[in-house]
Amino acid sequence: MPPSVSPLAVPLPDLPPVAGVRLGVAEAGIRYTARADLTVILVLKGSTAAGVFTQNKCPGAPIDWCRAALAETHGQIRAVVINAGNANVFTGRAGREAAAATARAAAALAECRPEEVLIASTGTIGEKLPHDRIAAALPALFQRLHETAWPDAARGIMTTDTYPKAATRVARIGDTEIRITGIAKGSGMVAPDLATMLCFVCTDAAIPAPLLGRMLSRATKRSFNCITVDSDTSTSDTVLLIATGQAKHPRVRHGDKQLLRGFRAALESLLLDLALQVVRDGEGAQKLIRVDVGGAVSHKSARRVALSIANSPLVKTAIAGGDANWGRIVMAVGKAGEPADRDRLGIAIGGVWMARDGELVPGYDERPVAEHMRGQEVQVAVDLGLGDGAATAWTCDLTHGYIDINGSYRS
Amino acid sequence: MPPSVSPLAVPLPDLPPVAGVRLGVAEAGIRYTARADLTVILVLKGSTAAGVFTQNKCPGAPIDWCRAALAETHGQIRAVVINAGNANVFTGRAGREAAAATARAAAALAECRPEEVLIASTGTIGEKLPHDRIAAALPALFQRLHETAWPDAARGIMTTDTYPKAATRVARIGDTEIRITGIAKGSGMVAPDLATMLCFVCTDAAIPAPLLGRMLSRATKRSFNCITVDSDTSTSDTVLLIATGQAKHPRVRHGDKQLLRGFRAALESLLLDLALQVVRDGEGAQKLIRVDVGGAVSHKSARRVALSIANSPLVKTAIAGGDANWGRIVMAVGKAGEPADRDRLGIAIGGVWMARDGELVPGYDERPVAEHMRGQEVQVAVDLGLGDGAATAWTCDLTHGYIDINGSYRS
Repeated sequence: MPPSVSPLAVPLPDLPPVAGVRLGVAEAGIRYTARADLTVILVLKGSTAAGVFTQNKCPGAPIDWCRAALAETHGQIRAVVINAGNANVFTGRAGREAAAATARAAAALAECRPEEVLIASTGTIGEKLPHDRIAAALPALFQRLHETAWPDAARGIMTTDTYPKAATRVARIGDTEIRITGIAKGSGMVAPDLATMLCFVCTDAAIPAPLLGRMLSRATKRSFNCITVDSDTSTSDTVLLIATGQAKHPRVRHGDKQLLRGFRAALESLLLDLALQVVRDGEGAQKLIRVDVGGAVSHKSARRVALSIANSPLVKTAIAGGDANWGRIVMAVGKAGEPADRDRLGIAIGGVWMARDGELVPGYDERPVAEHMRGQEVQVAVDLGLGDGAATAWTCDLTHGYIDINGSYRS
Repeated sequence: MPPSVSPLAVPLPDLPPVAGVRLGVAEAGIRYTARADLTVILVLKGSTAAGVFTQNKCPGAPIDWCRAALAETHGQIRAVVINAGNANVFTGRAGREAAAATARAAAALAECRPEEVLIASTGTIGEKLPHDRIAAALPALFQRLHETAWPDAARGIMTTDTYPKAATRVARIGDTEIRITGIAKGSGMVAPDLATMLCFVCTDAAIPAPLLGRMLSRATKRSFNCITVDSDTSTSDTVLLIATGQAKHPRVRHGDKQLLRGFRAALESLLLDLALQVVRDGEGAQKLIRVDVGGAVSHKSARRVALSIANSPLVKTAIAGGDANWGRIVMAVGKAGEPADRDRLGIAIGGVWMARDGELVPGYDERPVAEHMRGQEVQVAVDLGLGDGAATAWTCDLTHGYIDINGSYRS
């Protein structure tokens, strides 16, 4: 039973071309029928790339392939092949061969080396990837590659997602306008680190691969690594950033932070946009939850507390039920294991401080809080009252929809 | 809407008296109506006690009280007062006063010092405990104390529990028969460390408090700290062990391990029995899940992997749906962050090895596994293939019932 579209869905924005990038999709019949499940992103020669991958200790064969390929080519890549329906994880030697065969098939069409092709797979774990179907579908797909196919690609990489996810930004490097566009998919098995399943971002800027890598790591840390749906970490999480170098802007040199300031900000904004789209499509999500933690002994400590709250099933079910249950927030703060003093704790929902210094605020009126919680976006704030550490995490509520989807779908 | 009794419920066993222990319950009207919500355990002078408490950094006032009281009296205690319906957590100075007032009221009736009275509270967090109602109900309750009231006490400490939990064992110290009896309550917010809400165990053995403490810690580690319902750790978890010293057995001296071997084994068996009763009553539980991890680099590492699997919402929903989804088990192994080699991993459900050395077993037949998963007890085994570390964790499945209970009940 396909889930209906998330009530928190955001519409697909206009996605203008990114110079040097063409995309295409095909129905390869890997698992799904009557829908595109194979996507290719082809970039011009001279493009640079960087990737951030899952921290799961049992990653899929495509993750191994990408890590090795990026190392071998120093980030000089030509294509990305993404399939939905089968994650090619826990498939042993056959899985490694399937990844290599897919890269070889795409490389033949892109006229490059297999190592210049990155691979991403998402879907069922533990079943052999029918890579022959991919190889069979690629030639016709390559015939249809087009710079306007971003919306098709956003749909082609979906699994249990209920809507396609994309975002685009314009930045300046010097006086030159730069385009950055990305697509992403979720939506279960989402937790730091990493917090998305798949995300592909392209820009026409010209940026050396090592610098791309540093900017991508930083932006990922502030976006995908701050979201959680169910505390489960996928074996396939991948974020790729590719720069085609087609824009004519002042040459970017290592260490020139000022020149890239606008680009860096736009990249972070884009990744956060995509990360929040993933949370909004969390399996069964009815509400987007923002958790701000301040007053911690450090940012790191604040982040742990924020994620402890965002991952608590009891907090998430309470919010699903519209219950301003700050007691469960206290519990989640305490179970994080970070420095906390019960008697300094403050808790707010929707900007209303319910508790301060470890006690209910005298005369606290639950009505505006209850009103806030009936909305689609719930804000939780915690003040630990210990220091200056602050962090934000995003999650969604835990509903019957999550049980429905995960009690039947095999992913 | 009160939940119906868990399908995994176990019947209350016969609970013979423990020499030196009398119990009683009363309807104090703390939150519930028309049910006992106040329980007292009174023990003879000369009894010794030890406690293990929640690791949550924001514990309730009763936890603070017990820790201080046990330290002050060196474990020489006379009574335990337990109330259900209000956890007296995050209640500031008023909460500390409520705990002290409760202890004073009971001490006056038990003719002892307030510090000789331990307190445990469970229920809603963040609301002031109406301790005057407890004080008002105690005198009549003390009139009715009786050594046969174990079943009443097991019921009196329940909150969202769907059935009362108790267990009893007989052990020998020398030639003397010793009785050990305990009661417990769950059932959400259950995770290491500590994994129960409340558990009270009494024995007629004569054992010095420090030795009781060591045995209790060890037994708790092997029972309550191996179970998880939802990864959330309560602010009120308490396990108390009280020895009345009424049995006439050879005197127990520090370091005499042989004499206490039988007692220690019986205590561990009793606590595991109670811990599993708590899991079986996990909110919404339809299935008991046992996770055995072997082949880890250490026992500690095995335990982390076992709990990562037992806490994974994706694993728990799959089992709820009867889906032998070993892919999600791979994911949960990997996200534990412990040493794991994807290509050495073996996974079994119901004793059938589905995967070995990182691949599906050739000719694997899912039917006996699917049959096993239709039962009420599901066994998951993982072989990491790295070393001799082994551990077991228990949990329950994640169902619509959990969402129902926690989306409405304020605890």
